[in-house]
Amino acid sequence: MTATTGLAERLRTELGADSVVTDPDVMSSYQRDMMPLAPAGSPQVVVFPANTAQVQTVVRACAEAGVPIVPRGAGSGLSGAANAIDGCVVLVTSRMNEIVEIDPDNRLAVVQPGVINLEFRGAVEKHGLFYPPDPSSYDWCTMGGNVSTNAGGLCCVKYGVTTDSVLGLEVVLADGEVLRTGRRTVKGVAGYDLTKLFIGSEGTLGVITEITVALKPLPQAPGTTIAAFSSTEAAGAAVAQIVREGLVPSLMEIMDASSIQAVEEYLKTELGAGKGCAALLLCQSDAGGEAARHELEVIEQVCQSAGADLAYTTHDLAEGQMLLQARRAVLTALEIYGTWLTDDVCVPRTRIAELISGCERVSAECGLRIAVVGHAGDGNMHPTIVYDANSPEEFARARKAFDDILAIGLSLGGTVTGEHGIGKIKRDWLAKEIGPVGMRVHREIKTALDPGNLFNPGSMF
Amino acid sequence: MTATTGLAERLRTELGADSVVTDPDVMSSYQRDMMPLAPAGSPQVVVFPANTAQVQTVVRACAEAGVPIVPRGAGSGLSGAANAIDGCVVLVTSRMNEIVEIDPDNRLAVVQPGVINLEFRGAVEKHGLFYPPDPSSYDWCTMGGNVSTNAGGLCCVKYGVTTDSVLGLEVVLADGEVLRTGRRTVKGVAGYDLTKLFIGSEGTLGVITEITVALKPLPQAPGTTIAAFSSTEAAGAAVAQIVREGLVPSLMEIMDASSIQAVEEYLKTELGAGKGCAALLLCQSDAGGEAARHELEVIEQVCQSAGADLAYTTHDLAEGQMLLQARRAVLTALEIYGTWLTDDVCVPRTRIAELISGCERVSAECGLRIAVVGHAGDGNMHPTIVYDANSPEEFARARKAFDDILAIGLSLGGTVTGEHGIGKIKRDWLAKEIGPVGMRVHREIKTALDPGNLFNPGSMF
Repeated sequence: MTATTGLAERLRTELGADSVVTDPDVMSSYQRDMMPLAPAGSPQVVVFPANTAQVQTVVRACAEAGVPIVPRGAGSGLSGAANAIDGCVVLVTSRMNEIVEIDPDNRLAVVQPGVINLEFRGAVEKHGLFYPPDPSSYDWCTMGGNVSTNAGGLCCVKYGVTTDSVLGLEVVLADGEVLRTGRRTVKGVAGYDLTKLFIGSEGTLGVITEITVALKPLPQAPGTTIAAFSSTEAAGAAVAQIVREGLVPSLMEIMDASSIQAVEEYLKTELGAGKGCAALLLCQSDAGGEAARHELEVIEQVCQSAGADLAYTTHDLAEGQMLLQARRAVLTALEIYGTWLTDDVCVPRTRIAELISGCERVSAECGLRIAVVGHAGDGNMHPTIVYDANSPEEFARARKAFDDILAIGLSLGGTVTGEHGIGKIKRDWLAKEIGPVGMRVHREIKTALDPGNLFNPGSMF
Repeated sequence: MTATTGLAERLRTELGADSVVTDPDVMSSYQRDMMPLAPAGSPQVVVFPANTAQVQTVVRACAEAGVPIVPRGAGSGLSGAANAIDGCVVLVTSRMNEIVEIDPDNRLAVVQPGVINLEFRGAVEKHGLFYPPDPSSYDWCTMGGNVSTNAGGLCCVKYGVTTDSVLGLEVVLADGEVLRTGRRTVKGVAGYDLTKLFIGSEGTLGVITEITVALKPLPQAPGTTIAAFSSTEAAGAAVAQIVREGLVPSLMEIMDASSIQAVEEYLKTELGAGKGCAALLLCQSDAGGEAARHELEVIEQVCQSAGADLAYTTHDLAEGQMLLQARRAVLTALEIYGTWLTDDVCVPRTRIAELISGCERVSAECGLRIAVVGHAGDGNMHPTIVYDANSPEEFARARKAFDDILAIGLSLGGTVTGEHGIGKIKRDWLAKEIGPVGMRVHREIKTALDPGNLFNPGSMF
């Protein structure tokens, strides 16, 4: 019996046979997340623990066998952080999918990591409560994955990212011990903020087995303003002015000409690309009543002053959702042209137009379509490169464009990832962004908490 | 020349004589913060570096001499975290008091750690911007101290604590290297969240030399509702119902009978203590216009339904400030009766009344006045014990009451510190709250970043 067989056997004995998979065909569907650029290896075992005790069992068995663990939620990530490495154990949290508690009086909830974001949103809505983080994959991504990547979404301009909604965690550490971080109170400063250290750590420090989140009151149904601009500079100026006016819309998204054109073709609709529309800005206000009307009125005026060719506001929910559909359809629409590769860069809000024009330059240089969509309200842009997956040469050009965009982001005072994470594709860029002292501190913390490099080695750094 | 003299001499040579103090009388005013219970030793040197390079010089000199450093802002803290230990170097940030940059278009600012909170608030207000964290000492505490303790204040119920406003830090590490954490963008997930690890670390991991903060639009002038209750249970029920209604007031403070009585005597005013008023609830809404009117109307109705004897709302700013004065005057008012010792405990919002009645029990048991004031909106209470500082026996009883209150807080599912920190008085309580695995992880991180235990040894753990 080899060591490998031994580990699978041990896990079968301790977890039950239906929790352990070694069939290569089945395992292959747990090899990758949604980022085609990132390397992915072949696991030796895929395990589906049902509870914290079983996670401890897996961690201890792997630690003893010297086999690395790659924790994984649904695999909707866009950085390769959940990608397997050769010979690893992939630990899938999908069976730990219980909403443990919803406490409306204290506006908090406790969930297991495998709970689907959308299911959780629905469950708390029944109590008149709101869980803000809404990554694009919210209908299939898991709460554990959201915490591990510190996921964002369309909500962030007003409600922040995942870390802003998490009160505490339960984590299984490298030696199999259970750490509880944080608390059930809305404030608390007892000790280091370990909760926020584990959030966004991409599975490199431990396995998250329970999450306590803070909830907000359910906001009002949003009103929506859409504005069309004949230049990205004018759209960028509108975004900057909206920020300067002290407005905090609940959503502020931008689409460039390439995105608009793709959506027009895909949805068979008319958004103005043929008439020189270079950028669409979509804003929502969920402030309700007079406040929302005022907020969107000012936004409409700002857009017009910045040179919008058209600006339109509706307080009809269905119409607003229809307008937003254009934004949500961009990635799917781009599949008309080929395979997409979406980048993730966040710049100061005043530099958005420069980022978009930079992407136009990169597109011209590499000869590939690059569509820019993004969360204008927080400067988080997703330039998306379209290429032919069957052409290694196009893939190489796409890869170069991906990096060129990150360089532009950094040069504008931005970061190489606003919400997707470092994972296995941006390790070099993390080092470029934070420098040698930052990298040293990362390694010191990693070594302190995971001296055997058990958790997700090769991710992040 | 002794080693001690050698260190002072070296610092004088490298920093300039006016930056280094060794006179025991002068040094004694840098020995303590505002927490009388915490132990304090005698420093060998007090230094006032003028910039990051000078902080590096101090850190390197102390590391070489094996002399611990206690970093310190204004000394307004309430945990003894800034208290000197025997033979240490106290590093005072007061000379690093420059507002480096205010960027209204990106709603951010960069400050040195010695900037006074109130001065900074005023500076950004001129740009129509708002820096929420407002600890009670905001007219003299420093931004660096606020970050080191993750300070709170009255704003937290709507705007969160200091960590929610910080984008990035510059920190001098134990080997004298400069670490930059975070970024200037509103979103970013590149690497571990080192920014939030240093926030609230009470000077145990490094010396913070620069802070980048996010700013908010200046809110509207607040309206104010005050409600008087003849039982703390009724006041607690009102708080729970306000939370349940989905309201987010910009301030929600509670005062118990003891606090009310003290303020009546001090301000020579009538707040109802003589007529059986057991609790006052003060709420503000800064939502502006119709939204604020609606919010305070609902709050007033909730208070009345919960059994308030009186509920009154004003949208006059000056009148609102006058009402709030009663809350702000509590600690000063208590000095009529003796020396005060303020505790800091945070419980789930539904447990506030139980905490207050628990404090009444402790008061009866120890025979000392205990006044409870606190941030009802987030369950963060400050039971304040009054004792005779000249009586060691009363001091001992006060000390015991302080601990008894923490035990009650923990038993209610709370934390032993909502905003003041662990420092040198709650080390045992940190261990009780987070347990052995939590303590182990704390020590692992501390050892990884500060292997020589150079920074603030004996604080936190």
